Amino acid sequence: MTEPSNVRVGIYGASGYAGQDVVEILTRHAHVELIFATSNTYKGDPVPFTTLHYISHDSADLSAVDVVFLALPHGVSADMAAQAHARNVKVVDLSADLRLETPEAYQQWYQHAHPHPELLPTPYGLPEINRANIIGKSVIAAPGCYPTTTLLGLYPLLRHRWMTPDAPVIVDAKSGVSGAGREPKPNLHFVEVFGNFSPYSPGRAHRHVGEIEQEMHKLDRDAGMVIFTPHLLPVDRGLMASIYVTLKEDVSADKAQDLYEETYGHEPLVTVLPRGHQATLRHVVRTNGAAISLTPIADRYLHITSVIDNLRKGAAGQAVQCFNLMFGFPETTGLL
Amino acid sequence: MTEPSNVRVGIYGASGYAGQDVVEILTRHAHVELIFATSNTYKGDPVPFTTLHYISHDSADLSAVDVVFLALPHGVSADMAAQAHARNVKVVDLSADLRLETPEAYQQWYQHAHPHPELLPTPYGLPEINRANIIGKSVIAAPGCYPTTTLLGLYPLLRHRWMTPDAPVIVDAKSGVSGAGREPKPNLHFVEVFGNFSPYSPGRAHRHVGEIEQEMHKLDRDAGMVIFTPHLLPVDRGLMASIYVTLKEDVSADKAQDLYEETYGHEPLVTVLPRGHQATLRHVVRTNGAAISLTPIADRYLHITSVIDNLRKGAAGQAVQCFNLMFGFPETTGLL
Amino acid sequence: MTEPSNVRVGIYGASGYAGQDVVEILTRHAHVELIFATSNTYKGDPVPFTTLHYISHDSADLSAVDVVFLALPHGVSADMAAQAHARNVKVVDLSADLRLETPEAYQQWYQHAHPHPELLPTPYGLPEINRANIIGKSVIAAPGCYPTTTLLGLYPLLRHRWMTPDAPVIVDAKSGVSGAGREPKPNLHFVEVFGNFSPYSPGRAHRHVGEIEQEMHKLDRDAGMVIFTPHLLPVDRGLMASIYVTLKEDVSADKAQDLYEETYGHEPLVTVLPRGHQATLRHVVRTNGAAISLTPIADRYLHITSVIDNLRKGAAGQAVQCFNLMFGFPETTGLL
Amino acid sequence: MTEPSNVRVGIYGASGYAGQDVVEILTRHAHVELIFATSNTYKGDPVPFTTLHYISHDSADLSAVDVVFLALPHGVSADMAAQAHARNVKVVDLSADLRLETPEAYQQWYQHAHPHPELLPTPYGLPEINRANIIGKSVIAAPGCYPTTTLLGLYPLLRHRWMTPDAPVIVDAKSGVSGAGREPKPNLHFVEVFGNFSPYSPGRAHRHVGEIEQEMHKLDRDAGMVIFTPHLLPVDRGLMASIYVTLKEDVSADKAQDLYEETYGHEPLVTVLPRGHQATLRHVVRTNGAAISLTPIADRYLHITSVIDNLRKGAAGQAVQCFNLMFGFPETTGLL
Repeated sequence: MTEPSNVRVGIYGASGYAGQDVVEILTRHAHVELIFATSNTYKGDPVPFTTLHYISHDSADLSAVDVVFLALPHGVSADMAAQAHARNVKVVDLSADLRLETPEAYQQWYQHAHPHPELLPTPYGLPEINRANIIGKSVIAAPGCYPTTTLLGLYPLLRHRWMTPDAPVIVDAKSGVSGAGREPKPNLHFVEVFGNFSPYSPGRAHRHVGEIEQEMHKLDRDAGMVIFTPHLLPVDRGLMASIYVTLKEDVSADKAQDLYEETYGHEPLVTVLPRGHQATLRHVVRTNGAAISLTPIADRYLHITSVIDNLRKGAAGQAVQCFNLMFGFPETTGLL
Repeated sequence: MTEPSNVRVGIYGASGYAGQDVVEILTRHAHVELIFATSNTYKGDPVPFTTLHYISHDSADLSAVDVVFLALPHGVSADMAAQAHARNVKVVDLSADLRLETPEAYQQWYQHAHPHPELLPTPYGLPEINRANIIGKSVIAAPGCYPTTTLLGLYPLLRHRWMTPDAPVIVDAKSGVSGAGREPKPNLHFVEVFGNFSPYSPGRAHRHVGEIEQEMHKLDRDAGMVIFTPHLLPVDRGLMASIYVTLKEDVSADKAQDLYEETYGHEPLVTVLPRGHQATLRHVVRTNGAAISLTPIADRYLHITSVIDNLRKGAAGQAVQCFNLMFGFPETTGLL
Repeated sequence: MTEPSNVRVGIYGASGYAGQDVVEILTRHAHVELIFATSNTYKGDPVPFTTLHYISHDSADLSAVDVVFLALPHGVSADMAAQAHARNVKVVDLSADLRLETPEAYQQWYQHAHPHPELLPTPYGLPEINRANIIGKSVIAAPGCYPTTTLLGLYPLLRHRWMTPDAPVIVDAKSGVSGAGREPKPNLHFVEVFGNFSPYSPGRAHRHVGEIEQEMHKLDRDAGMVIFTPHLLPVDRGLMASIYVTLKEDVSADKAQDLYEETYGHEPLVTVLPRGHQATLRHVVRTNGAAISLTPIADRYLHITSVIDNLRKGAAGQAVQCFNLMFGFPETTGLL
Repeated sequence: MTEPSNVRVGIYGASGYAGQDVVEILTRHAHVELIFATSNTYKGDPVPFTTLHYISHDSADLSAVDVVFLALPHGVSADMAAQAHARNVKVVDLSADLRLETPEAYQQWYQHAHPHPELLPTPYGLPEINRANIIGKSVIAAPGCYPTTTLLGLYPLLRHRWMTPDAPVIVDAKSGVSGAGREPKPNLHFVEVFGNFSPYSPGRAHRHVGEIEQEMHKLDRDAGMVIFTPHLLPVDRGLMASIYVTLKEDVSADKAQDLYEETYGHEPLVTVLPRGHQATLRHVVRTNGAAISLTPIADRYLHITSVIDNLRKGAAGQAVQCFNLMFGFPETTGLL
C-alpha cells in the first residue's frame, strides 16, 4: 500500500451524476491523487474540476492506481470489481452489484445470475451502521440512495428493536431527478418532469426493497416487510424518505427523540433535528450529511422524515466516507 | 329564484388563487351571469377573463345576485355566509368555516368559537360521496383540497367497510404551492421553495385532519385515525395523497381494483387508472377531475394514489360542481 | 371539398409536443372530424383527448381525409406534403420544409437540396401578416415559433418602414423547452435544464434567421440584418422575443404605441399591452394569442417584447388558424 | 489595525440572501473571526454555518470589530457606513448608497438627497477594473449584480475604446429571483414566478443604469448610452447579461476573442470561454467567478454573454474579494 498521504485513485463512470460528484469531492481531498476518470460516452472531454480528460473504460490502467471508484451500471460493475480485486486494487463499488449478500438474492431482484458470486458477501458501506466492517477492507459495496435514507431513518429503532414485529414499515420516498441517472430517457425530459410529481415501482417492485430488508433484518430479525413507494420529484438533487412505523406497546413514541439523539449524537454526518422541526431537502442538498426529524403520533406510531442529497450521502459522499475508512483517513476528510 | 338559464353570481375573494379559478370556470358556464367579483387587495383592477373590475367586499350588492361563492379566509367567510343566507342568497362556501358539523369540533380545530353556529351542520359539498344532500340546497360547505383527495381515495373502502377497524390510515400528501394561498409569506418566496421539498403540520396537527375524520366516520364508524403529513411541493398546482391502509382479513387487496372501478364507473370526474398504471399530477392539473391508482401489497395492504388539481377539484371546480347540483344544472356544466 | 361542418382531418407526428396540441385544439373544433393521428414512436398508444390510437405514418389512409397537419421532422415533412397534395388532400405543414421560398435558400440554411422544389413557394402561414394569401389555399407553410414572435413584434414597423435602413435588428429570444421537441437528448434532461439558462446558435447561426429575414424583406426591403440569440429557458412552454431596433430620424419612438395599437386593433389573437405594462409569458401560455409591449428609448430606439406560447401561436394554434382560413371557417374557431 | 491573521468582522443585514452568502464565505476564510451578524427580522435565530445568533442592528458593538460588511437596504446603509467610519471601522458596503460618485447623481437615480455626501466618492469595488483603488482602502462600495456582469462583459472594449462612439449599448439581462431580495412580495411568490419570465424597469428606468454608465464613461468617455432590460428568471441564483455592441470600423469583431483572453488571462475569477462555446448560468452558479463568451457578427457587431452568480461575484463573493484587497490578503482567499 502507498503512503496514506498519496492514494492514487481511478474513477470509472466518472461522467455520470454520481461519478461527477466523486470527482468533485476527491479534488478537495487532501490525500488523493486522481489518476484517471473514465467515460465511454464523453471520452476525450475535459473532466470538470481537474486537468484530466475522460478516457474509455478499456484504456484505463489499473496498475497505476491503488483504488477505484466504480460508478458503473449494474452488471458491468461487478466485472470491473473482479478485475481490480484480482490485481490488488481496492474497490468502492457504487453500483448495486455487490450489495446483496447472496447470489440467490441477486437473482431474485435482478432476474439474472450474479456475474461474480465469489465477491459475495461484500461489506455494506453504510458507516453509521456498519463502520467496523468497513475499516481497512479491500472491497466495499456502497449502498443505494433509497436504502441509505431509509436505513438511517430506521436504525435507532432497529438496533433497539422498538418496532412491533411484523408490522409493515411504510416508506413513501421522493427523489430528485439526478437519482435516475444522466442518460436521456423520455420520462426524464424536462417537459415531462416540470410541474409533475409521479410514483413508480410501488409496493414491493423496486429493487432497493431487497437491499433495505436485508439490512433491516440483520439488525432486527422480527422487523416487518417494507412497503415502498418511490416518487420522481421535480428538483435536481435531494431525497426524502417519509417513514411510518408502529412501535411495540412497551415503548413510547415520545421517547424516540431521545433514542435518536443518543444514537446519532456523535455522528458527524447525521443531524437529528430538535423536536418540532421538520427535515427538508434544503437541510442537506449539496452536503454529505443526512438530517432526520421525528413526529410521534398517539405515542404508538412514529413518523420519521429522513433526508439526504442523493448524489452525496446517497452516492459519492458516502463512497468517499467508506474510502476514508478503508485507508485509515479521518472519516470526514473531504466531506465537511 | 331566477330562470335556470341566467343565474346571477357574485364571487367574494375573487383575486385569490381559488377565486381566480372560480371566475375562469364561470365565464365558460352556459347559465351564469357574473355580477361582481370582490377583492379588498386588488380593488379597482380588472378581473381576468371578464370585463369587470374588482370591488371591495363591502361595496358588493347582495340583492343583485342569486348566489355567492365565498373564497374568503376562514372566520370572515361565515359572516358573509350568514348575511347572504339571511337575504335568501344561496351560498357556496369554499372556506373551512362550515365544514365541521358542530361548534365543538370547530372550537377544537380552530381554537375559537364558531361565529355562526346556527348555520351548522351545512351539507358537505363532495358530490361523489354526498350528492343527495347537495341537490337543491341553499348553503354548501365545499371541502378542502386535502380532504377531497383523501376521501375520494378512501371512499370505496369506507363505504364497504373494507378497512381493519382502528388500524391507522396513513396519508402522505404533497401539495402545489397555490394551495397555500396568494398572500406573500416568507416560506412561499420563490427562492425558498425552488429545489426544496418540505413537510409541515405533521401527525395530527393539520386542521384538515378533523374534517377528514368527520367524513370518514360517517361512512365507517370503525375506521382508524388518520396520520397525516402534508408537504409543500415545488410546483404551482396539483395535489397527491399517498394513502396506506390495512384491509380486513376477509377481503382481498387484489380485488380493490374491481371495487374502485365499480364505485366510480359512472362518475364523470373520477378516473380509476388501469392496473399497473400510477396516478401523477399530470393526469389532473388544469382539469376538474380526480385520478386514482391502486397497488395491492401482500393481498393485505393497499396503497392508494389519489390526485387532483388543488384549485379545481380541490376548490373552484368542486364549488361549481356543487353549484350545478344546487341549481339543477347538469353536474359537469362548465367543467369538462 | 366536404361540407364545412365536417372536415375530415389526419395528423402526422401527433405525439410530438406540437402534434399533441394540434389534437387537443381540434377535439374542441366544431367543424372537425379527427380521422387518424400518427406516431411511429408511440404506435398503438391511446391518443389523449380522443378515442383514437396512434398509427404508424405508413398505415395512415390519405384517401380518408380532406386535410393533413404535418408535425413531422423537416425533410420527412416535404415528402408527405407532396404525397398529400398529389391526392388533393390539403396540407398544413408545421415543419420548416416549405417556409423558405426558394430551393437555394433552403440549401443555404439546411445544407441539403430541397426534396420537393415544385412545392415552392408555399404561402407563409402567418395570418396577421399574410392573411390574403392563406384564404382558400391548399398547402400552407406554418411558421416557426421564433419567426412568429419576432415578425409579429416587428410587423407594424416593417409595414410602415419605420426602421433605419441597414441598422441591425437585435433579437434576444428565450424559449420554453418544449420548443426543442419531445425526443430525449442530453441537453433536455431535467437535471441539465433545471436552474440553468443558456444561449445556443447565436449570431446568425440559427436556421430561423433565414426565415425571419425573408419575411422582413418582403415588407421592407431596406430592413437591416437580424442578430439573433435564442436561449433555453427552464419552463415547459412560452417564448419571448426581446427586440431592439433603431428608428428613422423622422419618426418618433413615442408614437410607436399608437402605430401598434392601430395595426393590431382588430386582430383577435394579438394584444398590444397599454403603455408602461410589460408582456410576460404568463400573458400567453396555454392561449393561442400573442402579446406585445413597447418601450421607447430616447425617442430614437424601440425595445419590443413579443410573447407567445411556442406550441400554440408558435405551432399548433397558428396551424389551426391557417386551417380555418383555408376552409372558410371563422378564423378563431377552436382558438378562443 | 489587527494582525492580518485575525480580522474581527461584523455583518449587518446578515439574514438577507447576500448577507447569508457573506457569512457562508467568511466561515471558510482563514483570517476572519466572525464577531456578530445582525438581522432585525430574524433576531435570536441561529446564524447558519456558525454558532452565533442574529442580533438586532442596534445591539451590535462596533468597537468589537475591525470591519463591517453592510448588506442593508439603501438609505439605511449609508448611515451605518458613516457610523463605522467615524469609529475607524472599515466598511464594505453592499448597498447602492456609495456607488454613485456625486450627491447629484444619487439624487437623480434615487429621488432623494444623499444622506452622507461626505463619504462620496467611495472607491468602486470591482477589482478586475479598479483594483488599484481598492487596495488598503477603508470604505468600499461593492457594485450591484447587474453592473458587475455588464461591466465585466464590456471592460476590454471600454479600455481599448473599441466601441463606436455614441452607439447604444444594449444589455438584455436575466436575473435569478434571489436578486430581488428575501422580503416576501407578491411578484416573488413561487406561483407567480414558476413557469413565467418577465421584464421589468426596461429602457433606462432601472437604477443600475446610472451606475453602469458612470463606470463605463470613466473608461471610455465616448461610449454610448445603455439600453437596459432586466428580466426575472425562474431560478434561484445566477445572472446573465446579453450585451450587443457596435464596434469601430477600424477594429475587427473577430479579434475580440484575443482581446478578451489577453485582458482577463491573469484574472483568477474571470473565465473567457473558448471560441464557439456559450456561457451559461451553470458555469458560475455557486462560484465566485464570472464567465464570458463572445460571438462576432459580420465582423462589425459583437454579442457578449456575461454570467455570474448574483449572490457571489454579484454581491457576497465580490465583497470578500474587496475585503481581501483592503486587508492585504491574497485576493481569492476564501473564494476558490
